[in-house]
Amino acid sequence: MDRPGAVAELRAAVGAFAAAHDCERWCVGLSGGADSLALTAVAAALRPTVALIVDHGLQAGSATVTQTARQQALNLGCVDAQILTVDVGAAGGPEGAARTARYRALDHARTGLPVLLAHTLDDQAETVLLGLGRGSGTRSIAGMREFDAPWGRPLLAVRRAVTRAACAELGLTPWEDPHNADPRYTRVRLRTEVLPLLEEVLGGGVAGALARTAAALREDTEALDALAERTLPEIMRGEGLETAALAALPAAVRRRVIRLWLLEGGARDLTSLQIRRVDALVTAWHGQGGVAVGSALRRARLFAGRRDGVLTMHTETV
Amino acid sequence: MDRPGAVAELRAAVGAFAAAHDCERWCVGLSGGADSLALTAVAAALRPTVALIVDHGLQAGSATVTQTARQQALNLGCVDAQILTVDVGAAGGPEGAARTARYRALDHARTGLPVLLAHTLDDQAETVLLGLGRGSGTRSIAGMREFDAPWGRPLLAVRRAVTRAACAELGLTPWEDPHNADPRYTRVRLRTEVLPLLEEVLGGGVAGALARTAAALREDTEALDALAERTLPEIMRGEGLETAALAALPAAVRRRVIRLWLLEGGARDLTSLQIRRVDALVTAWHGQGGVAVGSALRRARLFAGRRDGVLTMHTETV
Repeated sequence: MDRPGAVAELRAAVGAFAAAHDCERWCVGLSGGADSLALTAVAAALRPTVALIVDHGLQAGSATVTQTARQQALNLGCVDAQILTVDVGAAGGPEGAARTARYRALDHARTGLPVLLAHTLDDQAETVLLGLGRGSGTRSIAGMREFDAPWGRPLLAVRRAVTRAACAELGLTPWEDPHNADPRYTRVRLRTEVLPLLEEVLGGGVAGALARTAAALREDTEALDALAERTLPEIMRGEGLETAALAALPAAVRRRVIRLWLLEGGARDLTSLQIRRVDALVTAWHGQGGVAVGSALRRARLFAGRRDGVLTMHTETV
Repeated sequence: MDRPGAVAELRAAVGAFAAAHDCERWCVGLSGGADSLALTAVAAALRPTVALIVDHGLQAGSATVTQTARQQALNLGCVDAQILTVDVGAAGGPEGAARTARYRALDHARTGLPVLLAHTLDDQAETVLLGLGRGSGTRSIAGMREFDAPWGRPLLAVRRAVTRAACAELGLTPWEDPHNADPRYTRVRLRTEVLPLLEEVLGGGVAGALARTAAALREDTEALDALAERTLPEIMRGEGLETAALAALPAAVRRRVIRLWLLEGGARDLTSLQIRRVDALVTAWHGQGGVAVGSALRRARLFAGRRDGVLTMHTETV
C-alpha cells in the first residue's frame, strides 16, 4: 500500500495509549460493531486481551450477536472472551439504563485490568453537541477522557470511518446495530443530520474541531478542579464554608468549591442549577431558604443553607 | 396587556445593565434593523442617548437606510443621531472587514461614552457555534461579554423575537437587511438551518443552552486568565520564561502564561496552534527550532525558542 492503512493508524493510536498508561494486559469492551471489533483486533495483537461482550437482552437475536462476537474475539487472538448478561433497569431512560448496566457489568468482570472502549473522534463530537444542548456548563461539554480509570479510550483521535476501513482490511464483518440507524435516538440524528449540516455550513473539519474543543475544555476544567480542591480546606469553618472567603473567589472557582463541598457532604446527582442556587446564598443573599439537593443516602435529602456567614448542610429523611 | 410586553422585557434588561454598570449617558450602535431599533427606543427612554449609525457604503441605497434610521432615532428622543460613513477594506474577508471598520468608527465617535450594541441571545448562540467550528479553544466559544468596555451588550439574555415584537408594539418599522437572508453568509445558515435543526433534535432550548454554556466558559476562562497573570511574573527569568517552572503548571494555566508572555512581547494574531507549538518547546523538547508568530511591528516576525532551559523571544524583520 502507498498510504498508511487503517489498521496501521489504529495500531499507532492503541500502541501510544499502551505506552502512555503502562498497560501490560487489558480488557476490551466488544459489541461486535465496527469500532469495537477493529479495536479488539488491534489490541489483541499488542497485549494479552480479554474481550468482554455485554448482552443487554434488549434486541431479538442478541444471543447470536454476542456469540458471533465472542468467536471473532477468540479468532483474533484474545486470551479470553466472556459474554456478560445484564438486566437493564429503567432509571435514566432506555439509553441511560443500558449504559449504567453495561458499565457495571464491565467493571465487575474486569478483574483489576483497565477496559478499553472504542469511542472515536466522532463519538466525542456527538458528546460535545449533546452537552451543548444541555447547557449545564463546561463539565458536560468537556467530553470523554482518554483515560478515566479503569476506562481507556485509545481511539478518541481516530475517525469512525477508519475503524470501518480497518475491519475491511482485516476481512472482518462487523455487526450492524439497527439502533445506529434509528432516528428515535438523539445521537443518531446528531450523527446523520446535524453533524453533516454543520460540516457543510462551517466548511468542514467540524468533528475534529469539536474534539479539540473538548480537549481544551477538559484541560481548563481539570486546572480549575485542582484549584478548587486546594482551596476547599482553606475556607472551611467546622463542617461549613465561610461565605466571606467564598465571595472573594472568582465565580468559576467558587462554584467548584461549593460543588466539591456538597459532594463530600454526601450530595448526589448535582445539577448546575442547584449549584447556582447554593452560590446565590453567597452572592445574592437576602435571607432566602435552604437549597434541597439529592443525597447518597436512601430516603434522604440534603439541604444547604446559610447561618451567621457560614454555609451549612443538614440531611432530612423523606 | 395581561402578560408583560416585549418593550417591558427590553426595558428591564437595559435598566439592569445601566444600574450594574453605572451608566448616565450612552451611545447606541444603530443599523435600523429590529434589534438595534428596539434597543435605541428603550435606551433613549432611560438615559440621554446618542445614536451612531454606520454607513458601510456596501449596499445600494445605504444612504436612504441610514437617513431613515437617523430620523427614527431622533423621533425616539435620542439627543443626537450621527451617520458615520466608513471605507470598508478587504482584510479578514467581507464580514470581518465591515466589522473592523464599524467598530473603529463607533470607537472614534463615542466621545468617551459606552456604546450599547444590540446583540441578542440568538447572536450569542451563533457565536458559540462559529467558535466551535473553529475548534481553537475555550476563548473562541466563550462568546461575547455583557460589558467589554466600551462595548455594552444589554440584550444578550433576550431572544431576537422579542426585539421584533417590541418594534411592533412601538409601531416602528425596522429595516430588513437583505444580508440577513443571504445563505452565502455562514451566520445566516447557522441561524436559518443549523439552529432550528439542533432545536428539533435536542428537544428545544438550544439557543438558551448555548448562551448559558458561553457564560460558564467565560467565567472559567476569566478565572484561568487571572491565575496566569499572577503566575507570569513568578516564572520569568530576565525577559524569558523558566521551562522547569512552566512544566510544573497545569496545561491550561501553562498555555495561558505562554500566551500572555508572547502578547506582552509584541505578538499579534496568535492562534491556538502557535501557542501549542511554543508549549511543545516545554513539554516535548527534542531540540526543535523556534516558532514564528505575528508581530505588532510592521514587517517583523517574532520567534520564540528555547535555550538553556529558558524560553526566549526575538524579532526579525522580513
